[in-house]
Amino acid sequence: MSRTGTRAPIVPASRSTTAGPFSPGIRLGPLLQVAGQVGIAPAPPEGSAPAPEASVRAQTRQALGNVGEILAEGGTGWEDVLMIRVYLIATSHFDEFNGAYRDYLGEQGCTIMPARTTVYVGLPPGLLVEIDALAVPDDR
Amino acid sequence: MSRTGTRAPIVPASRSTTAGPFSPGIRLGPLLQVAGQVGIAPAPPEGSAPAPEASVRAQTRQALGNVGEILAEGGTGWEDVLMIRVYLIATSHFDEFNGAYRDYLGEQGCTIMPARTTVYVGLPPGLLVEIDALAVPDDR
Amino acid sequence: MSRTGTRAPIVPASRSTTAGPFSPGIRLGPLLQVAGQVGIAPAPPEGSAPAPEASVRAQTRQALGNVGEILAEGGTGWEDVLMIRVYLIATSHFDEFNGAYRDYLGEQGCTIMPARTTVYVGLPPGLLVEIDALAVPDDR
Repeated sequence: MSRTGTRAPIVPASRSTTAGPFSPGIRLGPLLQVAGQVGIAPAPPEGSAPAPEASVRAQTRQALGNVGEILAEGGTGWEDVLMIRVYLIATSHFDEFNGAYRDYLGEQGCTIMPARTTVYVGLPPGLLVEIDALAVPDDR
Repeated sequence: MSRTGTRAPIVPASRSTTAGPFSPGIRLGPLLQVAGQVGIAPAPPEGSAPAPEASVRAQTRQALGNVGEILAEGGTGWEDVLMIRVYLIATSHFDEFNGAYRDYLGEQGCTIMPARTTVYVGLPPGLLVEIDALAVPDDR
Repeated sequence: MSRTGTRAPIVPASRSTTAGPFSPGIRLGPLLQVAGQVGIAPAPPEGSAPAPEASVRAQTRQALGNVGEILAEGGTGWEDVLMIRVYLIATSHFDEFNGAYRDYLGEQGCTIMPARTTVYVGLPPGLLVEIDALAVPDDR
């Protein structure tokens, strides 16, 4: 087995900057990894954070939308996602998160759900949700 | 390199329901991912949580048993596990967890230990341990 | 596609012992996983923890150095890293961590940055940083 090509960063056109020294996504060998996505649009105004009133549901949809954008930019989609890691800040948010997650993946036509782990951690102020994804694109 | 087949959910027979919109395990390309497993049996009674007296050791063994069941259902086992992610809720639980982990994998005949990361997070009430696993099955 | 060989633990020569029942790194199929590395040298004196004054920057550089040592022992390097998972204990540490991370990977000649997820968790007393890495070595 030989790896096909070299490491390729995946940077959607909407992303003029990143929040730090990492690639939004990486293709390497059989895998595509999407970096942790939060519930704000990829290129928010300087210093912006989600509006205080942004709900768990709204942030979940935005974070999943960001993941989906990176998957698409990398030539793959939800049907090739192996694993989703979910970081919430409070167990009381789980039901609202889970409903939004179920709805979103359903809208994307995802009938076989990825594996998933959800844990409760600290996130920067204003953020309620962070999500990353590991995919195995079927393009070779 | 071509991916073999499509994404296959792994659902042990013991699992009539899941706790959310995710697959207990997924086979995709060279990988098998086991979703986060907790210290309760796969199909507990409605609304059940671990008994308050369930120890770190007991929950660790149950969570590892759940991981092993999904690995087996996917046609692989502990000898093909690359990485274990462990989520505990208190650093004071580490020694008890670690002893139970070491014993369990020893009983499974696992002589080469997977890589592992252990961090301390929040989990739903009553849960002390969550564990997920990434494997590279050797079946092709 | 056939997996090449069997699971191989990666144990740098500096590691006479490990902190628990896990391998510092594992090569398996197309992947190399580095276990969670913290900001202490691989073989500290018995019962040692980082000195209380060890900064986020110092611990970050040590943890990344440990990751790099395992990558090298496994025949790969930063250019083959797909994903970095970062665990910090306080959001106020992010800027210092991020500067140290950027500097270190720059020094390693890493021009394409891995994907990354950073969350805030609990770690054992004295530890400020934990980092693990998933790589796809390009050696076959």
